[in-house]
Amino acid sequence: MPDATTVLEKDRQDPLKAFRERFVLPDGVIYLDGNSLGVLPAGMSRRIAEVVEREWGERLVRGWNDAGWIDLPARVAGKIARLVGAGDGTVAVGDSTSVNVFKTLSAALALRPDRRVILSDSNNFPTDLYIADGLARLIGQGYELRTAMAADMDDAIDASVAAVLLTEVDYRTGWRYDMAQTTRRIHAAGALAIWDLCHSAGAFPVHLEEADADFAIGCGYKYLNGGPGAPAFLYVAPRHLEGIRPALSGWMGHQAPFAFTADYAPAEGIARMTVGTPPVLSMSALDAALDAFDGVDMELVRAKSQDLCDLFIAEVEAHCPELELVTPRERSQRGSQVSFRHPEGYAIMQALIAEGVIGDFRAPDILRFGMTPLYLSHGDVARAAEILGRIMGEKRWDRPEFRTRAKVT
Amino acid sequence: MPDATTVLEKDRQDPLKAFRERFVLPDGVIYLDGNSLGVLPAGMSRRIAEVVEREWGERLVRGWNDAGWIDLPARVAGKIARLVGAGDGTVAVGDSTSVNVFKTLSAALALRPDRRVILSDSNNFPTDLYIADGLARLIGQGYELRTAMAADMDDAIDASVAAVLLTEVDYRTGWRYDMAQTTRRIHAAGALAIWDLCHSAGAFPVHLEEADADFAIGCGYKYLNGGPGAPAFLYVAPRHLEGIRPALSGWMGHQAPFAFTADYAPAEGIARMTVGTPPVLSMSALDAALDAFDGVDMELVRAKSQDLCDLFIAEVEAHCPELELVTPRERSQRGSQVSFRHPEGYAIMQALIAEGVIGDFRAPDILRFGMTPLYLSHGDVARAAEILGRIMGEKRWDRPEFRTRAKVT
Repeated sequence: MPDATTVLEKDRQDPLKAFRERFVLPDGVIYLDGNSLGVLPAGMSRRIAEVVEREWGERLVRGWNDAGWIDLPARVAGKIARLVGAGDGTVAVGDSTSVNVFKTLSAALALRPDRRVILSDSNNFPTDLYIADGLARLIGQGYELRTAMAADMDDAIDASVAAVLLTEVDYRTGWRYDMAQTTRRIHAAGALAIWDLCHSAGAFPVHLEEADADFAIGCGYKYLNGGPGAPAFLYVAPRHLEGIRPALSGWMGHQAPFAFTADYAPAEGIARMTVGTPPVLSMSALDAALDAFDGVDMELVRAKSQDLCDLFIAEVEAHCPELELVTPRERSQRGSQVSFRHPEGYAIMQALIAEGVIGDFRAPDILRFGMTPLYLSHGDVARAAEILGRIMGEKRWDRPEFRTRAKVT
Repeated sequence: MPDATTVLEKDRQDPLKAFRERFVLPDGVIYLDGNSLGVLPAGMSRRIAEVVEREWGERLVRGWNDAGWIDLPARVAGKIARLVGAGDGTVAVGDSTSVNVFKTLSAALALRPDRRVILSDSNNFPTDLYIADGLARLIGQGYELRTAMAADMDDAIDASVAAVLLTEVDYRTGWRYDMAQTTRRIHAAGALAIWDLCHSAGAFPVHLEEADADFAIGCGYKYLNGGPGAPAFLYVAPRHLEGIRPALSGWMGHQAPFAFTADYAPAEGIARMTVGTPPVLSMSALDAALDAFDGVDMELVRAKSQDLCDLFIAEVEAHCPELELVTPRERSQRGSQVSFRHPEGYAIMQALIAEGVIGDFRAPDILRFGMTPLYLSHGDVARAAEILGRIMGEKRWDRPEFRTRAKVT
């Protein structure tokens, strides 16, 4: 367990330390929940005021051309593509993650018309499972969602499976799939791989093309810091692009939206995966947020993320022997979060938040801490563990005010 | 044709004139395009800055509870329900209009399992047709989109039709369906009625319950002034609510989203029609925009809208005999816009916009002018017609700079 001097020294030598200035952090808070909602990027307020007052207020409908709103989703997509190892013209931004699961999964099923099974992880984030189930019921005709535990996944991928929908990093434990290896297994069975990058994009380098993924989806409001409910994104491998007729065939994905023709014809390439009119305010926020990644070496982000995880695990285990680590100790097997289990998890997290250390709780018993190297220091993480230790030592969570469940956990 | 004194007198006696202060209008602009993108409501910039800086920046993830983000869509829905004649708990806000067409249409089809036809208007806004076609293709099994001209609609509604998807007001001509009468015809044939209110909500009083509509969808960024790409809304008649299992079964529509269970179970009532995480910035803008309707008598809005339409028609016909009116002269048969046809429509509109009069163009030859009584005066409308008359008289549109087509028209 490192002493205070070591922690200070690590922060002094941190090659990413200057990036903290790109974010606005409230005083008195150590924020370990960037995996749920990223913090406010610096300059965001000014940029949004400009969109509201200058672009909307003054340009009015002319903003679609003058302010470039019509090209905004594609511009944002280009910034995300760089972070997930995707080429130009393979990423589309818009709608929610849930809707993007629907879009990519329906496209994948159409590419494997003789197969009827969607396979996913029993512990996948619920919306992925719900959407897959809803799609299977909508189409009927024997389509079904099947789930397997991660440990049994390889065996579950058989010749009945059309598409495998997996989240790279488990939202509860932080356990991480080997994307390239699992994709090879999926392809060997003749199925298609859809990767949910909600806990990957912006957290560490992602290599969609290298891993040969077929489709991907991801979230704009976690590690990408796009703001609450920011637009989501999706990826389609170039080999599939021209063969897809979107199930959600909205006008913005038409080859000539402003010709207003009655018949649908998909736009060239990835543009066909956009659906309705883009939400300009939320999209502009995501656009501005992504600039915080300008010049960032994602390999350095990964290295620091793992240092922070190791440090946090060591410090928490030293201070809080009653918390059970559920995140893999092996660096390659985890994303950018650390989770512990405790039956009083909810109350412990509330007590911790009251002390200014913000993580979150995931039912039934998981305390979850996200590591975001661009705005967290080793000192923050060591201090957070120390405060957690005090709360555990004093059983401070055992107070009534920490037991009232809020609507959102 | 009224003289200048009459116009001034009408503005003096206008019971809605004080509402103009609720909006920010740029100098030198007469804005006749609120049917495409509504203007900026006053106070919007301050409200959005508060959401960005105070709620997101300072509360961070706690904003879901502290700032009430989780209840924001339902709050916004309540405000919209009042404007469209819908009861509490029947409206959901989120996603785009296109996605909401998909949600309501798929729900309607499931309620008529023995029928295979979606019927729509040949001149419906393209995204409605595209989405309906995409849904039919996705389900397969003989589902098809059939279209008919409005004049032939009654005859086209037969016992093969599961759902009829109509936009109350034609986006090109401004022609308006009789919603109650057409709904009766639809129900007599055993089909379900889905009304697209994109050019209705906020433009005049809508009576969804009175008209016995089954479903409705609508747009937040036109007459509701929610900002570019604002979230859309949908309505489900109470009698259908409990029988619907959403096709887009996302986690926010689950009965217990934060229990994170693997199996989908729809939320009680209308909440099941929400899908992913709501876009808080865009949703907050729509929320603030709807406050501009506080205390507004929509019957007065309708009366003034029709006065403005009549005035504009009379003035344009006096100044510009070469423009052909395509909007019905009969008040009850139109929405809140006036459209004219001219082969040089695109260039004429560009020349007009260059003079500060903003309307829009719809292919192939329609000049479209929206009437928004809360921020337009009779004087604005008369002046716009006069400027249009000058452009036509001088053939000012016949200049090369007005012929270059922009990406968005």
